[in-house]
Amino acid sequence: MARIVMKFGGTSVADLDRIRNVARRVQREVEAGHQVAVVVSAMSGTTNQLVSWCQSLSPLHDAREYDVVLATGEQITTGLLAIALQDLGVEARSWAGWQVPIQTDGAHGKARIASIDGAELIRRMGLGQVAVVAGFQGLGPDYRITTLGRGGSDTSAVALAAALGADRCDIYTDVDGVYTTDPRIVAKARKLSRISYEEMLELASVGAKVLQTRSVELAMKEKVRVQVLSSFEDRPGTLVVDEEEIVEKEVVTGIAYSRDEAKLTVRRVPDRPGIAAAVFGALASANVNVDMIVQNVAEDGTTDMTFTVGRSDLPRAQEALSHARQEIGYWEILADTNVAKISVVGIGMRSHAGIASRMFKTLAEKGINIQVISTSEIKVSILIAADYTELAVRSLHTAYGLDAA
Amino acid sequence: MARIVMKFGGTSVADLDRIRNVARRVQREVEAGHQVAVVVSAMSGTTNQLVSWCQSLSPLHDAREYDVVLATGEQITTGLLAIALQDLGVEARSWAGWQVPIQTDGAHGKARIASIDGAELIRRMGLGQVAVVAGFQGLGPDYRITTLGRGGSDTSAVALAAALGADRCDIYTDVDGVYTTDPRIVAKARKLSRISYEEMLELASVGAKVLQTRSVELAMKEKVRVQVLSSFEDRPGTLVVDEEEIVEKEVVTGIAYSRDEAKLTVRRVPDRPGIAAAVFGALASANVNVDMIVQNVAEDGTTDMTFTVGRSDLPRAQEALSHARQEIGYWEILADTNVAKISVVGIGMRSHAGIASRMFKTLAEKGINIQVISTSEIKVSILIAADYTELAVRSLHTAYGLDAA
Repeated sequence: MARIVMKFGGTSVADLDRIRNVARRVQREVEAGHQVAVVVSAMSGTTNQLVSWCQSLSPLHDAREYDVVLATGEQITTGLLAIALQDLGVEARSWAGWQVPIQTDGAHGKARIASIDGAELIRRMGLGQVAVVAGFQGLGPDYRITTLGRGGSDTSAVALAAALGADRCDIYTDVDGVYTTDPRIVAKARKLSRISYEEMLELASVGAKVLQTRSVELAMKEKVRVQVLSSFEDRPGTLVVDEEEIVEKEVVTGIAYSRDEAKLTVRRVPDRPGIAAAVFGALASANVNVDMIVQNVAEDGTTDMTFTVGRSDLPRAQEALSHARQEIGYWEILADTNVAKISVVGIGMRSHAGIASRMFKTLAEKGINIQVISTSEIKVSILIAADYTELAVRSLHTAYGLDAA
Repeated sequence: MARIVMKFGGTSVADLDRIRNVARRVQREVEAGHQVAVVVSAMSGTTNQLVSWCQSLSPLHDAREYDVVLATGEQITTGLLAIALQDLGVEARSWAGWQVPIQTDGAHGKARIASIDGAELIRRMGLGQVAVVAGFQGLGPDYRITTLGRGGSDTSAVALAAALGADRCDIYTDVDGVYTTDPRIVAKARKLSRISYEEMLELASVGAKVLQTRSVELAMKEKVRVQVLSSFEDRPGTLVVDEEEIVEKEVVTGIAYSRDEAKLTVRRVPDRPGIAAAVFGALASANVNVDMIVQNVAEDGTTDMTFTVGRSDLPRAQEALSHARQEIGYWEILADTNVAKISVVGIGMRSHAGIASRMFKTLAEKGINIQVISTSEIKVSILIAADYTELAVRSLHTAYGLDAA
């Protein structure tokens, strides 16, 4: 007997047939003797309809009322799924966020879960009742409905799994797991049976959007074992777990890429203490996140600083640096959006040398120039010209032995 | 300065334009210096969609889950109307039933309001904030969402007006008031400026479906002044008030009719004590409501009993009497569905003689045969052949001086 949280996204509950299908999947777990809580999203399309109504009435609508309107989407799904389960003879009841309650902070539209009281749910699950819980929503300190922001249902599911002490949190999506790289680029990409939280975070943050980053962070903090699997096919997915659970640690687990970067070079800044603080302080004040940073050795008392920012942040970054030109005293700013970031991720790197050098050698063999390099404990990232993205990813996938047989 | 509850039904909030229109009406009351609470229904069509989903998933769905699904309709409207009001610069916030809270009993799908705590709403209305409250819903003793049944939003509005000590409860509908009779039958029907609760109840129960009967009963009990008016036109409607507020008491206020009746005659039952109890006891056990009753004088130790039941109850009534034939000992049962009930209603009747005799004289002049007669303090009802319905209503409308000039 295990205690399981199952989470179904909007496409998995898009119509009555799919809700019936979800009910049958839940029934199977119940009949296997498990205690089950289900977290559901709104039927796909519903949330967009509700958002558009709010925006039509007032572009600057009150976030608290927006939450009141949006939270109905998940509530409808909970009631319908409970009815579908009961129709199969499975005891079930629905729970709105405020009924559990799922307490959040007061940041309407993008609230964070503060605490979940799981006692009553645990009691009822022990009596064989399936708890059908509305994802994406909670109760704020002002006793009003809050929502967690887009994709928040993943976070709801992981937080609930933590509160219930669940053995596993199964996230049903429209992909069937986490792959060594994007299968649309590399036909030989392999589905991973296990991946560590840290690796998942690195992959998610560079564009493998299977799980919301926040939900993975929470799973890591609360040590919730998460499984990503398909709601349309019937086979095991990918387990996201603590690295201690991964016996055979791959040196490299996956290759990720992102084309959402822009490169900025600040030419000929004076080489004096405090200059980096001046540059990046200006960017931080403008709320621009900076990712990779390199600084050349000084020549003639000046140096060049190169770094990447999110492509959508580029105009704001350029404006912030222009404003601070007097203070910083640079010569010019160069911007380049024709770049891609390629990352090699793997917890095995910690104990293996030579990962980065193999990366550089592989790319050199293909004639791909590396513009910026940055490394973390379990990741090596490089910036290249965007045109070489697919070639780089495919070559690295082969070089690290990730290709499927 | 007055405190007002305004209630808008589903057709009044059917789309975003109509919601904006409602917001402007509310704004006008606020700008006139009034404290306003608004009770809203679901956007028309929404409830039917939600009901059909529940029924498709399971014809015998759990009433508690049905309430979870249905209550979202009103919640959406509250959020959208609050946004529309704020967009006009009117301070407003939405309230779900459970937030007020509107406490109900546990009869899911047809709950009755037990109590409303209006303290916080009164405090905020005093600060100029419009309370936008979800109609049709409440919070049951089990901390779950309940709904009041179809048309329950009228009852929500009246109950809220009572709890808030409101000066008036304005019910906006698609008719512009209460008429002396059905304007579709009598072109000269007049809109009443005032009508008493008792008269409204008598009219409602015989087919003038402007307000839910339950909401009128509640208004009478709590002495809430109700106004029925159009949400699409801009003119005063009909005030439903205590008869003490009606100075010029009309002898006859209106003529109502109903074709939803069926006539049953039990022929030749023994004329002995306890026989009426046997007949109507059998019907009560079968949950059949009996309306008009007449019993002929006995002849040869037997008598005939004639009475009316709702047309949809007729098969059940016939079956119940068949089962009790031995016990009652009648000769035969005659049923007739080709009947109509015509009622003349007016609180002035209490102090005026001759109302009934004018009715009988008017119908006799038109050659209309009266099959059954029953009277109450403020109503005279007769049963006639259905074919004469329009003729009877028109003749009586003229005879009692109700025709518009």
